[in-house]
Amino acid sequence: MNLGKVVGTVVSTRKESVLDGIRFLLVRLVDTDGKETPSFVVAADAMGAGPGEMVLTAAGSSARQTTLTQNKPVDAVILAIVDTWDIDGKTKYTK
Amino acid sequence: MNLGKVVGTVVSTRKESVLDGIRFLLVRLVDTDGKETPSFVVAADAMGAGPGEMVLTAAGSSARQTTLTQNKPVDAVILAIVDTWDIDGKTKYTK
Amino acid sequence: MNLGKVVGTVVSTRKESVLDGIRFLLVRLVDTDGKETPSFVVAADAMGAGPGEMVLTAAGSSARQTTLTQNKPVDAVILAIVDTWDIDGKTKYTK
Amino acid sequence: MNLGKVVGTVVSTRKESVLDGIRFLLVRLVDTDGKETPSFVVAADAMGAGPGEMVLTAAGSSARQTTLTQNKPVDAVILAIVDTWDIDGKTKYTK
Amino acid sequence: MNLGKVVGTVVSTRKESVLDGIRFLLVRLVDTDGKETPSFVVAADAMGAGPGEMVLTAAGSSARQTTLTQNKPVDAVILAIVDTWDIDGKTKYTK
Repeated sequence: MNLGKVVGTVVSTRKESVLDGIRFLLVRLVDTDGKETPSFVVAADAMGAGPGEMVLTAAGSSARQTTLTQNKPVDAVILAIVDTWDIDGKTKYTK
Repeated sequence: MNLGKVVGTVVSTRKESVLDGIRFLLVRLVDTDGKETPSFVVAADAMGAGPGEMVLTAAGSSARQTTLTQNKPVDAVILAIVDTWDIDGKTKYTK
Repeated sequence: MNLGKVVGTVVSTRKESVLDGIRFLLVRLVDTDGKETPSFVVAADAMGAGPGEMVLTAAGSSARQTTLTQNKPVDAVILAIVDTWDIDGKTKYTK
Repeated sequence: MNLGKVVGTVVSTRKESVLDGIRFLLVRLVDTDGKETPSFVVAADAMGAGPGEMVLTAAGSSARQTTLTQNKPVDAVILAIVDTWDIDGKTKYTK
Repeated sequence: MNLGKVVGTVVSTRKESVLDGIRFLLVRLVDTDGKETPSFVVAADAMGAGPGEMVLTAAGSSARQTTLTQNKPVDAVILAIVDTWDIDGKTKYTK
């Protein structure tokens, strides 16, 4: 999984009909200090994530292993809201 | 999913026969400001996307989860035409 | 899919037996102007592609969606010979 | 598979319910000398790996081929604790 | 597939039990001249490859399409020992 921060929303009215009702969030990947990087992904939101929240995203076929995304043309999903992480025993992020 | 801009078309007459009738579009990936990057992908067009439109593409096995692409040797598909997106509460792109 | 140019052949006698009879071609990826890049992939040839031809390749599980490659340990396939492509209305490559 | 070093833990209470009880470890990728690189992945821990241990991780659908991760939205898993590796006949890492 | 050179072995006693008996080799990717690059992958050895041999590796779900790796958490496999390859009609590598 990747660590990322929810920074925005992508809106689309013309889309595959099976995607109706799925929110697409813009998630910017962060480094292990929580600092934003230039990389980002547009992910289906299976968690009701809000702006500024740190999340875990899964990619590829694993992104379809949620009730929300099953059998749908979705290759990235938010599967968890992150509370905290630590590196070498030091807390690097707390919600 | 990736954000990209439709910039061209790829034409092929000699191809896997199951691909007959599928349009292959050249989609240049954009950054979060909508600026074109050097990266691009050739994607099957499940949406009737037109030149200059911003789209969402899915890659890998997820690209085969549309009626158009099911069970076909296609690893990228356009699954939505983007209307707008915002970052940190500011609109970055409007169609 | 990726755009690439067939530049060579890889020969192997010791290989998974299900791969007998499959040609492995060396395909160099090109940019949108058709210029070769340092990146390349070795792809199973489902099309009878010849040296110098521009092709489309699919990667991952999608590479196994051809009669030639089904259920085989192949993660890249040539699925089309490219005739032409255009960018912003200008022809960038013609066979 | 990738070679990585366990450097931390990611904690999440709001997550896909099927992920309850799975530990998510922060694994920094290493080079062939065992030196840490900037790249990292958050992986489900199928092995009870501890901080500082070198591990092998698998990505994509292969990450779901363990009892722990089967059919779950997980795209990276720790599948082995590394004891040692050698390059060109020289030991580069020993636990 | 990728072209790589077998440069080492990774040893692990604590691992998913289905992986018992599978050799994990360290394969450094090479460029089209056969020169080693900094990139590498740890691959299951389905071919009995030896040190210094050039090999083809497959990644992702395709890595599980061999008798050795089927249904196992393995995302890279050696599927062929390379005898020779050529670029633009010139032999670049011979075993």
